[in-house]
Amino acid sequence: MHVLILGAAGMVGRKLAERLARDGQLAGRTVSQLTLHDVVPPAAPAAAAGAGFEVSAHTGDIAEADTINALVAGKPDVIFHLAAIVSGEAETDFDKGYRINLEGTWGLLEAIRQAEFVPRLVFTSSIAVFGAPFPEPIPDEFHHTPLTSYGVQKACGELLLMDYTRKGFVDGVGIRLPTVAVRPGKPNKAASGFFSGIIREPLSGQEAVCPVGPEVRHWVASPRASIGFLIHAAELPGEKIGPRRSLTMPGLCVSVGEMVEALRRVAGDKVADRVRWERDPFIDGIVAGWPQNFNPRRATELGFQADPDFETIIRIHIEDELGGRIPG
Amino acid sequence: MHVLILGAAGMVGRKLAERLARDGQLAGRTVSQLTLHDVVPPAAPAAAAGAGFEVSAHTGDIAEADTINALVAGKPDVIFHLAAIVSGEAETDFDKGYRINLEGTWGLLEAIRQAEFVPRLVFTSSIAVFGAPFPEPIPDEFHHTPLTSYGVQKACGELLLMDYTRKGFVDGVGIRLPTVAVRPGKPNKAASGFFSGIIREPLSGQEAVCPVGPEVRHWVASPRASIGFLIHAAELPGEKIGPRRSLTMPGLCVSVGEMVEALRRVAGDKVADRVRWERDPFIDGIVAGWPQNFNPRRATELGFQADPDFETIIRIHIEDELGGRIPG
Repeated sequence: MHVLILGAAGMVGRKLAERLARDGQLAGRTVSQLTLHDVVPPAAPAAAAGAGFEVSAHTGDIAEADTINALVAGKPDVIFHLAAIVSGEAETDFDKGYRINLEGTWGLLEAIRQAEFVPRLVFTSSIAVFGAPFPEPIPDEFHHTPLTSYGVQKACGELLLMDYTRKGFVDGVGIRLPTVAVRPGKPNKAASGFFSGIIREPLSGQEAVCPVGPEVRHWVASPRASIGFLIHAAELPGEKIGPRRSLTMPGLCVSVGEMVEALRRVAGDKVADRVRWERDPFIDGIVAGWPQNFNPRRATELGFQADPDFETIIRIHIEDELGGRIPG
Repeated sequence: MHVLILGAAGMVGRKLAERLARDGQLAGRTVSQLTLHDVVPPAAPAAAAGAGFEVSAHTGDIAEADTINALVAGKPDVIFHLAAIVSGEAETDFDKGYRINLEGTWGLLEAIRQAEFVPRLVFTSSIAVFGAPFPEPIPDEFHHTPLTSYGVQKACGELLLMDYTRKGFVDGVGIRLPTVAVRPGKPNKAASGFFSGIIREPLSGQEAVCPVGPEVRHWVASPRASIGFLIHAAELPGEKIGPRRSLTMPGLCVSVGEMVEALRRVAGDKVADRVRWERDPFIDGIVAGWPQNFNPRRATELGFQADPDFETIIRIHIEDELGGRIPG
């Protein structure tokens, strides 16, 4: 089986490639070829999948027809489309966001249609397709109401994915990822960054500022659970999904206060007390418009599995990123 | 004021141009210039709006950048975007539907953005953005679930309209028209055509076949009410609408049996008995997936007015299309 990952240099793409190399199989078939693509050179996974596991890495702009046609020419059995301009950048660079997130996704669908083969295409959408006001919790019957350019681009991607699938041009599954936490690496400037930072930094001996009150709730999934969603989406029989091809993934609805208390139970007072509460009205205002809680019944019935609780999410971070130990 | 109508040769476009020529004003301002565009030459309205009312007619392909840029270069104050490949053709000609309905709409938004002016843009969307299963009635909080290419193209158009409006590039209002009935003219092959045919043909002395049972309900508006929606959408203060810029228009939820009984009350047994009931499983199957009933609270609160009842819809057809008399 040949697997293509678009957006392979990002955090999720890297972890997905590692997982595929480790498993060596997908949907009950041996993975023999893994093609990685990103706008910067993606690294081959460190884990070895044994002989006969061929990895190739490519760099380019997926919104260019030549680039995407060349990637699709190899007729991969499964394509993971993770490539995207993130929310903040799509909001400040209108042209770039539309070019990559909408033209790029549409161009991928067209390239597949023109190449006349029908791969499973796993498209990472986002809970940004929902904008306030929301019902509480948000049911599967509540549909697109984005309030950002990124959300509009993802919503249009979902709609196109549905139609190209309905027409038999591709076998698409869209998954709306929760906010992924705890993200490894350095703090970034995303408005949602603090959901990871308030756990990651204290565990590394550093202070972290929480810019919202402890009562603020959010919808999160660990990187490990998120990779599990991607794998399950690749393996799911299409006929089970029905015509509405995009699914809200099961996350955990957890308040910031509960996150810090979970950190206290896992790592002790000294670590948890490194969180400083300092409300930032700007970030507070942005976060107020975000969805907080879902009832992801369809995805749950289809076998997508959420993290059991936030303590587990913290332990996953310690295991996968800190070698199982809490420094300092 | 300068008004541009894209799709001016269609039934709705023609009636809108006539209405503007008759009124001579829009949103309290004198209309001095009316630009009509379609893929076939649009006719200038018959009604005279007096001196100083300039009409120009243009023909071309709105999905071509040169064409749309030239139309937008005149910086019209209000643009009515009615141009579309209809549902049936968008389903059979995938490329043409996407080219005109999605690329064309996106191209229009981009042309406006590049020309750096902010017109009121009235976009005719459709209840085809909704696909089964539905709540009953469908509330304003139920969003995009299209099951056709046409519905996907209109839903993406709504999303883009929202985002370009939010960014201040255009002042957009999307209106989801009910099925327009009674459509004047010859029967067409649209699956929805019989909703008009079972009234229009009997009133003209001809037999009409009804391919679904009398219990089938649908969501309809007269051509006159539909033109009223367009005018009201052009005049509505944007700040009243809020960020969700597309609105389901108030139609009448009426069963086919009720339609024929209304025809009986208006025009007598002889006319109503010209409807022959002959169930067509193919059309019956298509219609079963269509929305039937809405609660269009937002549009109603914003002052959009539905037809009062189906008898009125029949009388409007007799007045506007048959010179006030029932032939034969």
